[in-house]
Amino acid sequence: MPKSHIMLQLESQHHGTRMPQSTKTAILVIGGAEDKVHGREILHTFFGRCGSVDARIAIIPSASREPAIIGERYVNIFQDMGAKELRVLDIRDRAQAEDSELQSYIEDCTGVFMTGGDQLRLCGLLADTPLMEKVRQRVQQGEITLAGTSAGAAVMGHHMIAGGGSGESPNRSLVDMATGLGLIPEIIVDQHFHNRNRMARLMSAVAAHPERLGIGIDEDTCAMFERDGMLQVMGKGTVTIIDPAELSYTNHNEAGATDPLSLHNLRVHILSYGDRYHLHKRCLISPDC
Amino acid sequence: MPKSHIMLQLESQHHGTRMPQSTKTAILVIGGAEDKVHGREILHTFFGRCGSVDARIAIIPSASREPAIIGERYVNIFQDMGAKELRVLDIRDRAQAEDSELQSYIEDCTGVFMTGGDQLRLCGLLADTPLMEKVRQRVQQGEITLAGTSAGAAVMGHHMIAGGGSGESPNRSLVDMATGLGLIPEIIVDQHFHNRNRMARLMSAVAAHPERLGIGIDEDTCAMFERDGMLQVMGKGTVTIIDPAELSYTNHNEAGATDPLSLHNLRVHILSYGDRYHLHKRCLISPDC
Repeated sequence: MPKSHIMLQLESQHHGTRMPQSTKTAILVIGGAEDKVHGREILHTFFGRCGSVDARIAIIPSASREPAIIGERYVNIFQDMGAKELRVLDIRDRAQAEDSELQSYIEDCTGVFMTGGDQLRLCGLLADTPLMEKVRQRVQQGEITLAGTSAGAAVMGHHMIAGGGSGESPNRSLVDMATGLGLIPEIIVDQHFHNRNRMARLMSAVAAHPERLGIGIDEDTCAMFERDGMLQVMGKGTVTIIDPAELSYTNHNEAGATDPLSLHNLRVHILSYGDRYHLHKRCLISPDC
Repeated sequence: MPKSHIMLQLESQHHGTRMPQSTKTAILVIGGAEDKVHGREILHTFFGRCGSVDARIAIIPSASREPAIIGERYVNIFQDMGAKELRVLDIRDRAQAEDSELQSYIEDCTGVFMTGGDQLRLCGLLADTPLMEKVRQRVQQGEITLAGTSAGAAVMGHHMIAGGGSGESPNRSLVDMATGLGLIPEIIVDQHFHNRNRMARLMSAVAAHPERLGIGIDEDTCAMFERDGMLQVMGKGTVTIIDPAELSYTNHNEAGATDPLSLHNLRVHILSYGDRYHLHKRCLISPDC
């Protein structure tokens, strides 16, 4: 067992308290299809960042059309790891997200996990609800750890990729944009990234919003954001950063819906396990950053 | 001479003249599936750069397993445009590429067109043959215009993508490299680019050869290289430039065959119709270049 997990167990006598003082909260943006059976490294890291055996986790399965099944699956995983408390917030209509009892569970939890499914469904049910506002506040205060996988990752930015195509030159009609939950407003996330060949659609999204940062996350791969804006990669694949800060030209505003797009002077990073990048400084962690 | 060698001498009295003085030669690197029926812009541009009605064109169909059929198809297209002379150099074994009569056709032609098929087959038949050396010399001297589509485009660089996969994080085993014909040695070409989701494979190729420039060309799209190193885009899709000149880190040399690759600080340009880029200066044509 990693040393940090031992330390967290030793501090488990702080029963009933909030997040253990030594636990750093984070936001884990997961590209979908994370390992749920073997090493479960990403899910285990989330569990650790929720306080390990002190973890009280809320699972939000609302993106899925089978929320009970998928919720139960994550309950079993985190129960198996030894979480203190687990609850599936099986919100199926917006009125539920105003339920004060659910809100008080969010008040007391140490972590929130959003499952996969359909990101439009997830936003439709949760955007601008008191429950989601509570999640956002507590995440921003660094009081709880948040994770989202697949659709649960897609909703992280202010601008969200709702859907799109592949196998074409970047073009405006290749991506459908919507408004996300804005938990990390400055990023546009795409998930199952290289697995489903989504480079052109993320580039098309970035062309529409060059003030944002495009982040493509492969399956069983996680971009873990610390509170200071540092992102670290874990898991099996890569995290692709598309940084348009130096964009010198795009024809996005003049192009027809299916015209190929120009994007001049993108900076692109492919990050793999252990690589770190600073979201605000927009640089890789090296002596120059 | 094989029966399928077609010779058309539409204006045989002009036999022996060279490229008209006013015609600028170029190298057209075409991403495959170029329009052969309607506007035929790319093929028409090739025809023009070969001297239009003074064009004497050699068609090399050797990449294809159906060279007679594909050769005939291009003969019909350029005949229709009014080429003075057309000949399919249907080379099916390396000995033919030493045939002095074929070499003398190359001596007299104004343009060479390499069709699609399998780039390993094309290189296997033509690399380091006297015929291909003659083509290379005349292209380098600016005496003839050269075009290659699909497999005929893939062979342009010194390093050639022979095959590979898609739908994975960039990794060493995602791309099979071989030696190309080296007509534009500094580039690594990938074709049918966004259409077949080849970004990760071209990035994997660039990771192996960061001293080169990755160029991904979509279908019915052409990167036309002028003699001074200027590239201009025409056609329906985009040309993607992956420039690793500022690459600050890659794990390529330590990574296992299927480990995800890190590539930090790539510069990527998506170019569409009319965009221009200078191959040697590695910049887009703007006041800064």
